[in-house]
Parts: sequence; structure tokens; C-alpha cells
Amino acid sequence: MEGDIAEMGKFIGAGLATIGLGGAGIGVGHVAGNFLAGALRNPSAAPGQMATLFVGIAFAEALGIFSFLIALLLMFAV
Amino acid sequence: MEGDIAEMGKFIGAGLATIGLGGAGIGVGHVAGNFLAGALRNPSAAPGQMATLFVGIAFAEALGIFSFLIALLLMFAV
Amino acid sequence: MEGDIAEMGKFIGAGLATIGLGGAGIGVGHVAGNFLAGALRNPSAAPGQMATLFVGIAFAEALGIFSFLIALLLMFAV
Repeated sequence: MEGDIAEMGKFIGAGLATIGLGGAGIGVGHVAGNFLAGALRNPSAAPGQMATLFVGIAFAEALGIFSFLIALLLMFAV
Repeated sequence: MEGDIAEMGKFIGAGLATIGLGGAGIGVGHVAGNFLAGALRNPSAAPGQMATLFVGIAFAEALGIFSFLIALLLMFAV
Repeated sequence: MEGDIAEMGKFIGAGLATIGLGGAGIGVGHVAGNFLAGALRNPSAAPGQMATLFVGIAFAEALGIFSFLIALLLMFAV
């Protein structure tokens, strides 16, 4: 049993780390969803806001990537 | 088994720390999403609010970075 | 094993403390997002509400900082 309990903690922690991925998913969905709602109302303005769309997605996605990193670290590094 | 239970706590704690990343992701998405919704309705005002967009993203993202820091501290420092 | 279970509790507690950071992130996002939504609809009024924006961000952010403080205290002080 030596080490088994610590192993268990790693695996539960890695699973829990996906909560961050879920939250980032909500955030990214909010960015892209609002872009689409606005772009379909005023399509001529959409190309000018494309850069902001990707900035917003990148910042929200980064938080999900950090969570993914924590899950990977828990499974393979610590 | 000496120390294993504490190890388990660290790993589960690191996984739980991504809840903060998820909430920050929702917040960042809300900031960028509302910016896009407004910018597509009134594109001429968008450049003037770009600074506020990044201030809002930075404050929300900072809370996610703090959570990431807690996860790293739990895995590697304490 | 003496003391290990208490250690475990500290680390799990520190991880759980990031729930506060996540909620604060949602709150900050809500403040900045609604400011941007309004400022883009009526840009001439935005400078006059800038102080309120930072007051709102500061109060929501403070709650996240308090949670961060609790996580640090759990890991290093108690």
C-alpha cells in the first residue's frame, strides 16, 4: 500500500483539474457566442472585430490550457 | 504510508485549485463577449474601449493566475 | 501517520479556497463586461463611469484576494 494513497490523490486531482477546463469552455463559448450574435446583426462590422474575437478566445482558452497542464503534471510529473 | 496521506492532499488540492481557473475563464469570457457584442453594434466606439477591455481581462485573468500559483505551490513547494 | 491527516486537510482546504477566486473572477468579468456593453452603446458617458468601474472591480477582486490569502495561510501559516 506504500505510495498507493498518494497515487490515488494524483488521479483524483487530475480529474478535478478538468473543472478549470469546463469553466474556460464556458468563457470561450461566451466570447464566440456574443461575437456571432453581433456579427449576424451587423455583418459588415464583423471583419474589423475578428482580431478581438481571437484575443478574447486566447485569454479564456489559456486558463483552460493551464488547467490541462496541471492535470498532466499531476499524472506524469509529480 | 508516512507522508502519503499528506501527498494525497496536495494532489487533490492542486486539482481543486483549477476551480479558480474555471471561474476566471468564465469572467474573461464575459468581458470579451460583452465587448464584442457592443463593438459589433457600434464599431466606431470600439477602439476607444480597447484599453478598458484589456483592464477587465487583466483583472479577471489575474485571479486565474493566482489559482494556478496555488496549484503549483501545492504540487511543488509545500 | 501522526499529523498527516491534518496536513491533508490543509492542502485540500487550500485547493477548495480557490472557489473564492473563481467566483471573484466571474464577478470581475460581470462588472467589466457590463461596463463595456454600456460604454459601447453610449461612449460619451464612459469616462464619467470609469471610477465606478474600478470601484466595482476592486470590491469583487478583494474577495478573490481574501480567498487567495486563506489558501496561503492554510499552506504556510496554520
